[in-house]
Amino acid sequence: MQKIAIVGLGVIGGSFAKAFKASDSSNYYVMGIDRNQATLDQALEAGVIAEGEVENETILQRADIVIIALYPENIKEFILQNSDAFKEGAILTETTGIKQYVIGSIVPILPKQVDFIFGHPMAGRESQGFEYSDHTAFIGANYILTPLASNKPENLEVFKALLKKIGFQRLTQVTPLVHDELIAYTSQLCHCIAAALINSDRPERNTVQFIGDSYRDLTRIAKLNENLWSELMLNNKDVLVQVISEFEAEMSKIKESLITDNKRELEEAFIEATRRRVDMEKNDLMI
Amino acid sequence: MQKIAIVGLGVIGGSFAKAFKASDSSNYYVMGIDRNQATLDQALEAGVIAEGEVENETILQRADIVIIALYPENIKEFILQNSDAFKEGAILTETTGIKQYVIGSIVPILPKQVDFIFGHPMAGRESQGFEYSDHTAFIGANYILTPLASNKPENLEVFKALLKKIGFQRLTQVTPLVHDELIAYTSQLCHCIAAALINSDRPERNTVQFIGDSYRDLTRIAKLNENLWSELMLNNKDVLVQVISEFEAEMSKIKESLITDNKRELEEAFIEATRRRVDMEKNDLMI
Repeated sequence: MQKIAIVGLGVIGGSFAKAFKASDSSNYYVMGIDRNQATLDQALEAGVIAEGEVENETILQRADIVIIALYPENIKEFILQNSDAFKEGAILTETTGIKQYVIGSIVPILPKQVDFIFGHPMAGRESQGFEYSDHTAFIGANYILTPLASNKPENLEVFKALLKKIGFQRLTQVTPLVHDELIAYTSQLCHCIAAALINSDRPERNTVQFIGDSYRDLTRIAKLNENLWSELMLNNKDVLVQVISEFEAEMSKIKESLITDNKRELEEAFIEATRRRVDMEKNDLMI
Repeated sequence: MQKIAIVGLGVIGGSFAKAFKASDSSNYYVMGIDRNQATLDQALEAGVIAEGEVENETILQRADIVIIALYPENIKEFILQNSDAFKEGAILTETTGIKQYVIGSIVPILPKQVDFIFGHPMAGRESQGFEYSDHTAFIGANYILTPLASNKPENLEVFKALLKKIGFQRLTQVTPLVHDELIAYTSQLCHCIAAALINSDRPERNTVQFIGDSYRDLTRIAKLNENLWSELMLNNKDVLVQVISEFEAEMSKIKESLITDNKRELEEAFIEATRRRVDMEKNDLMI
């Protein structure tokens, strides 16, 4: 039986806890650390953690695997405060959406007795908090691992097997830079677009009566946790600004085709977009 | 019993036919005109039309209501070819996504014996063709009407009652200009954004392994029928270019906040976006 500690029972940490229970709960003894007692009580009541602590007292000392589902800034603090508590040989991981910055700030302060495997579950939710966590959140989803050269191969295998168990389907290993570039494009840029789209509405319009599915889809992620996202984006700003510029260039091409009445060029842009989307659907496990 | 002719059994026309059957089919006698015999056969087999013709022979002469679900360019041609066939007092309508241009091109050639009510069902689908039509497509959806001063009030009431019967929930009347501005924003801009986003991907990336829900959502409508959309957009280009520029200005604000490390400004943009989206959800019937 693996002893697992989940630190931070928000939407991601909570989904991990629920996914463990939903998969094969006899294999896992899941404990929770969350500064909010009410959240721990909820998780205990739901039966997804066996015990909980608002600050670590005895949990980390027993945990074989520690999943830290906190904001980037809070991970470092948590590790510093508990560096002596982690069990000898424990596997640690975190779930944030940026890797270069987080790895750079955490590796220098890591206690010697642990093996920290950095990674990113590709299953963000637009709502925060344990109440929005979901045992199916990870089923079929992608997981990106950015291992360190120092990670023990056997620990990587243990962690990957665990991820597969709770539903992740495609596990990919890349460098932190490649991760951050791709996340800037597939996630951060999308969130910027959603915010810019809804913010460009004119208040005097009665837009809601005109909404179709496309607008609903494109603004679903406009509900942004401003603290988390500005932190993630500012700590990844070089690559993010680059992908924003590349997007702006494509947008500007379309606008130019419209202004100059260039139907052929406009159609070419739409044919290419269609081709890419169809291609994506062939390879995307969750469509 | 109302005799209804549907012209063009694509995804929209087909959804009308299926919705009539699904609502209270004993009230409606539905006939179909489609240049494709195979489509007519499918619709006949599905029992959603009682009879079909590839070109009008006897259907329009009997139809009280004619729903023309064709591309903008084809509506005019259809009316010109059949102007003598329409029944005296028939209500005609079309379903295209632009109103100023369509009204401007059709009103001058309308036969005297019909009452043409222009409108737009807000329920586009990303796939084309009868096989993607759906009897639930209109349930809870918005319908925008842009009536002419010459429309008979009793005909408007008949048409509105029909729309309500098949599931449309909020019927709104606006001027063609207001319609086109709002459609430019809520639909055409969204489709341009989706195309620009997917076209700005770099081919050397293996993006599909990094996709999360946000990218899936924002590119769902990137599968564009290039003929239809370029026609709709070019015929609405003045207002579309304007809303693209307004969107670009918001995008550029976000980019600037990133470049200048202005966390407060970035957070403000996200707080405003969240407020707007939450507000929208309170008033959107389909969320």
